[in-house]
Amino acid sequence: MRNVSIALLGCGTVGKGVIDLLAMNGPLIEEQLKTKITIKWVLIRDLQKYESMDLPEPIMLTTNFDDIINDDDVEIVVEVMGSADFAKECIEECFKRKKSVVSANKDLIADYGIPLLKLSQEHNADFQFEASVAGGIPIVRPMYSSLNSNIIEEIIGIMNGTTNYILSNMTEKGMSYEDALEEAKEKGYAEADPTNDVSGYDAARKIAILATLGFHSAVTFNDVTVEGIENITQEDIRHATEMGYVIKLLAIARQDDDGISLNVHPSFIRKGHPLANVGGAYNAVFVRGNCVGDVMMYGQGAGSLPTASAVVSDVMNVILHFNINITGQREFVWHEVKLKNQSSICAPYYLRMVVNNAPGVLAGISRVLADYNISIRSLLQKDETTEIAEIVILIDSSSDGLVKESLQKIESLSCVRKVANAIRVIEV
Amino acid sequence: MRNVSIALLGCGTVGKGVIDLLAMNGPLIEEQLKTKITIKWVLIRDLQKYESMDLPEPIMLTTNFDDIINDDDVEIVVEVMGSADFAKECIEECFKRKKSVVSANKDLIADYGIPLLKLSQEHNADFQFEASVAGGIPIVRPMYSSLNSNIIEEIIGIMNGTTNYILSNMTEKGMSYEDALEEAKEKGYAEADPTNDVSGYDAARKIAILATLGFHSAVTFNDVTVEGIENITQEDIRHATEMGYVIKLLAIARQDDDGISLNVHPSFIRKGHPLANVGGAYNAVFVRGNCVGDVMMYGQGAGSLPTASAVVSDVMNVILHFNINITGQREFVWHEVKLKNQSSICAPYYLRMVVNNAPGVLAGISRVLADYNISIRSLLQKDETTEIAEIVILIDSSSDGLVKESLQKIESLSCVRKVANAIRVIEV
Repeated sequence: MRNVSIALLGCGTVGKGVIDLLAMNGPLIEEQLKTKITIKWVLIRDLQKYESMDLPEPIMLTTNFDDIINDDDVEIVVEVMGSADFAKECIEECFKRKKSVVSANKDLIADYGIPLLKLSQEHNADFQFEASVAGGIPIVRPMYSSLNSNIIEEIIGIMNGTTNYILSNMTEKGMSYEDALEEAKEKGYAEADPTNDVSGYDAARKIAILATLGFHSAVTFNDVTVEGIENITQEDIRHATEMGYVIKLLAIARQDDDGISLNVHPSFIRKGHPLANVGGAYNAVFVRGNCVGDVMMYGQGAGSLPTASAVVSDVMNVILHFNINITGQREFVWHEVKLKNQSSICAPYYLRMVVNNAPGVLAGISRVLADYNISIRSLLQKDETTEIAEIVILIDSSSDGLVKESLQKIESLSCVRKVANAIRVIEV
Repeated sequence: MRNVSIALLGCGTVGKGVIDLLAMNGPLIEEQLKTKITIKWVLIRDLQKYESMDLPEPIMLTTNFDDIINDDDVEIVVEVMGSADFAKECIEECFKRKKSVVSANKDLIADYGIPLLKLSQEHNADFQFEASVAGGIPIVRPMYSSLNSNIIEEIIGIMNGTTNYILSNMTEKGMSYEDALEEAKEKGYAEADPTNDVSGYDAARKIAILATLGFHSAVTFNDVTVEGIENITQEDIRHATEMGYVIKLLAIARQDDDGISLNVHPSFIRKGHPLANVGGAYNAVFVRGNCVGDVMMYGQGAGSLPTASAVVSDVMNVILHFNINITGQREFVWHEVKLKNQSSICAPYYLRMVVNNAPGVLAGISRVLADYNISIRSLLQKDETTEIAEIVILIDSSSDGLVKESLQKIESLSCVRKVANAIRVIEV
C-alpha cells in the first residue's frame, strides 16, 4: 500500500484530535484511500511540555520547521497552530516546496485565504480548509461544491460556541452574564482572555470566510461590523423570552443588488426558528440560496475530535487528488467587493431604556422616534422603583444610522438615564 | 468559452426546475465553470403535452431516446424521470457511450446505485446523484467527502415531506389523519395515490442510499423494514404532546459491531431535539459519526428549484471534472452487509390499548408484560365511556420481537378490545 507522510504544525486540542482520530479510524480511512497516512513530524514550541506525552510511532517532535519543510517525504502539512503570521510564513514555504496544506486556522484564512489559494495554485499544491469554519460541520466544501448552482442571498451563523454557551445558560438557567462567562471558563469553553469570542471577532472571521466563498467576493475580517455580547443582561434575556424571542450572537452576511453587508451582533430571533434551538456549544449555519431556499447545517463547531474530523477529511481529499494526479483546486471566481454602507442596513430593533419615573417621559421618547420617522411596533413600561422606570420598545425596521442618531438624541433627554441596550431583531 | 451540451430525460417538476435554474443563474454558473451549459434535448413521453410550453432556445423535444444517445454533442445526461427500469436502461446506455450521468432518481439509486457506479467507472464516465436524497440539502456528497473520516454510527432522517406535512398538521392544527392527507393532496404535497409516501417506501429508498454510502455497505430498499403513518391517530398525537414528544416518520440506519439495522417507522422524539422542530415539508438528516459527533443538515427535501439546485450542482461538478480530464469517481469501499435480525432491535415503546372498563384489566396486561420481562416506565388510564377505557403505557427499551409477541398475547386477553398502536420512542 502506498504511504503518505504528513506533518502537523501544532499539537494543541485539534492536533491531538488528529493524532487520536487517525489512531481510531485509521483502518477504515486507509481502506477508502488505498493509502496509509503516517504522521511523521509534529511541530511544537516547547519540547519539555510534550516529553511525557505518549505519541504513536513513528511521530517525531521538533521545534524547528526546517525539519519538516526540508523533508521530501512529507507531502501534506496540516496547520493547526492558530494565529496568522507564523502560520502564513510556514504555509507559503510549503506551497513553494510543492507540499499541500490543510489548515484549520480561521484567523489565517479570513485574512489571507485568497492570496494563499492563488499561491497554492501557482505551485500546483492543494489547499483545503474545511475546519476553519464551524469545526466538524461540513460547510466550506458544501458552499462551493453543493450550493454553487445558487446565487447566495444570505448566510446566518451561530458560529461561536463560547458565546452560544453563555447565552444559552443566561436563557435557560437565568444566570448573569458574568456568572455564565465564569462557568464557560471553568468548563473550558472560554479562554482566560475571552475577548476574541465574546466580542464577536471569532464569529466575524468565520462569516468573512463563508461570505467570500458564497458571494464570490474577497471580503476579509476588516469588512465585518462587529458587536459582542458583553452588554446583554438578564433583563434583555427576560424581555426576549416574554416577547417570544431568543437572543443569539449571529454572524450575518447578506447580498443583494446594492451590495454586501457583513455583521456580527447579538440578535433577537423568534422561538421556533431552527437557529433559535441551537443550544450550548453547538454551531449552525443557515444559508439561503435563490433556488435551494433555506438550508441549515448543524453540529459541533469546536472540540478536539469534531474539528479533527474535518481536518482528516481534508487530508483524505488531498490524497484522493494525489492518487489521480490532480489538486482539488477550483478556479474560484472573485467579484469586486461592493460593501453596503453600514448606516443604511435596516432591521427592527428592541430598545431598552432606563428613565426617570416621571410624567412626560414617554411623550419625549416617542417624539424623538417620530422625528426620525421610526415607528413603534410595541411598547412596555415597567416601574422599577418610585424613581426609576424601564421602557422597552420594539421598533419597525429602521436603518442602523437613524437608530443610532435617534438613540443619541433620546439619551440626551433629561428624563432618560440611559439607553441600556439596542438589539436587532432578525426576521428570517 | 467552451460549451457543454446536456440532455434532460424527463420534464416534470425537477426537469422544469433545471431549465428554470439554468435560465436564472446561468451567468454565475458559466463564470464559475468557464463553460457554457446548453440544454440540447429534453426527452418526454407525450409531445402534445409540451406543445404550448415556452422552452428556451435551442432545446429540442423528443420522444425518442436514440436522438440523445446518438448525439455525440451530448456529454452529460440528466435523468429526472423517476421510476427505475427505463431509467436504468437509458443510463447504462449512456455509460457505454461514455456520456456522464446526473440522476435525481431515488428508486433507481436505492436499487441499482452500486452496479451503475461500477459500470460508469468501467467506461470512465461520471455519475452523480446528490438530488436522489433530500432534494436540495447537501447530504450525499458531504457523506462521502466530508464525513468520511468517521465511522458512521447512526443516520436518522426526516426524508419524506408529504408525511412530515401530514404529521405537522395533525400536531399543530389537531387535524385527523384523513383530513391532513386530503389537504396535502390539495396543496400538491401528496400524490393522488399517496401509498409510496405515507407507507414509508420513499423514505426507505433514501435511507438505503445514505446507509450504503455512510456504512460502506451495499444495502438496498429490500433491506429496510418499513412501517407507515396510516395508523397514527389524533389520540396518539395528543398523548405524545402531553408526554413531551412529537411524532415523526423517521428513517433510521444504525451500525455497530453486531451489524446494521435499517428501519422506517413513526417515532416519538422528544421536543427540543433538532429533528422534532423540522416542520411542514422540510427534511432533515441527522448523522452521528464516532469523531464528529452529531451533525444535521436541514432544508427543502423536494420541490422544483430546490431539487434542481442539487442536480445542477452535480452537473457543475461533472463539468469541473471534464475540465481537468478526470471523472469524479471514487474507489468506493463496500463491506459485506451484515444485517441485524429485526426482532432483536430494541427501543422503548409507546403502547395504546382500548380495553373494557372493568376490574382486573390492568392486572392482566401488566402480568403479560412482566412475563416477557418488559418493564413499564409510565402508565395512564383514561375512562372513555362506562364501558370502554384507554390505557397508554410507556415501556423501557425492549426488543422488537418481544414487544410483538407480548402485544399478540395482550390482544388475546378477553378484556382487551384492541392494541390500537405501538410506536417506538427514539432516544437520541
